Formats: sequence, structure tokens, C-alpha cells
Amino acid sequence: MRARIIVTLKSGVLDPQGEAIKNSLNALGFENINSVRQGKLFEIDIDEDDREKSLKSVKDMCRKLLVNQVIEKYSIELDDASKN
Amino acid sequence: MRARIIVTLKSGVLDPQGEAIKNSLNALGFENINSVRQGKLFEIDIDEDDREKSLKSVKDMCRKLLVNQVIEKYSIELDDASKN
Repeated sequence: MRARIIVTLKSGVLDPQGEAIKNSLNALGFENINSVRQGKLFEIDIDEDDREKSLKSVKDMCRKLLVNQVIEKYSIELDDASKN
Repeated sequence: MRARIIVTLKSGVLDPQGEAIKNSLNALGFENINSVRQGKLFEIDIDEDDREKSLKSVKDMCRKLLVNQVIEKYSIELDDASKN
């Protein structure tokens, strides 16, 4: 099973990296940008066919290592690997 | 219009960061992991309602700043901001 985990900053949290990217894009001539937020993405291929078990396992990984839940939120998409 | 840009390493490119995360997850007791790949995510809110123009503009941003096309590939999802 393949899991795609998308981690983004919670909405109230300042994102200086996103702000820097916005400034760089402005400097390159892209003037119509309201905001840029940067996030992280993890693609994990796990050796488990059961969706429920996979989801539980991936949630555990997020809580224990991948996500700082004080400032970040995450979403998980599961894909059956055989489809890819 | 909101654009979500997902940037990942091309499939042949080594991902030492992903490998390090895999090792850390193994050390935490997650044994059934085949691979971990890390990517980047940009959420850009642009002041443009036309989908075609937005897509063209975002593709330009990817080529000029956000993506290193030698080793990375990207995908763009557009969301009408009014729906959010």
C-alpha cells in the first residue's frame, strides 16, 4: 500500500519560508500573488495490504515522527500499490 | 484561485533524506516499510480567476523558481478559492 502524507502549517502559524518564496516570485515579475505557504510531502510504501491497518500505521508514524502537531496539520491519502 | 504544487524527485534520483526517515521509522518499530520518498508542497493563492491563465502562470513559477527540472517533477492542482 502506498500512502501520501501532506503536512502543512496550521493556519495561524507564520511561514517565513513561504513569505521568502513569495518575495522571490514577486521579484521575478509574478505580481498577482496573495500568499505562498510551503509544506512537506512524504510518500511511504508499506508492506501491508489492509487499508485499515495501513491507515492506523501511517497515523502512528505521523504522530511519532513526521508531524509536529503543535504547529502542523496532516492529511493522508492511501493508494493501492497494484494500481500504480 | 488557489494552486497546490506537489514537487517530488524523479524516480531514478537518490533520496537520502527519505532513506534517513525510513531508518528512523524502522528504529521506532515500524518494520514493514519498503520505501520513503520526501517531496515539497507549495500552496499559492493567486489573484486571478481564469483557470487557463492561472495554470500558465503557475507553470511559469515552477519552471523559473520552484522546481529543479533536472532532478524533480511536479504536478499542479487548481482550486477555485471561492469553494474553500
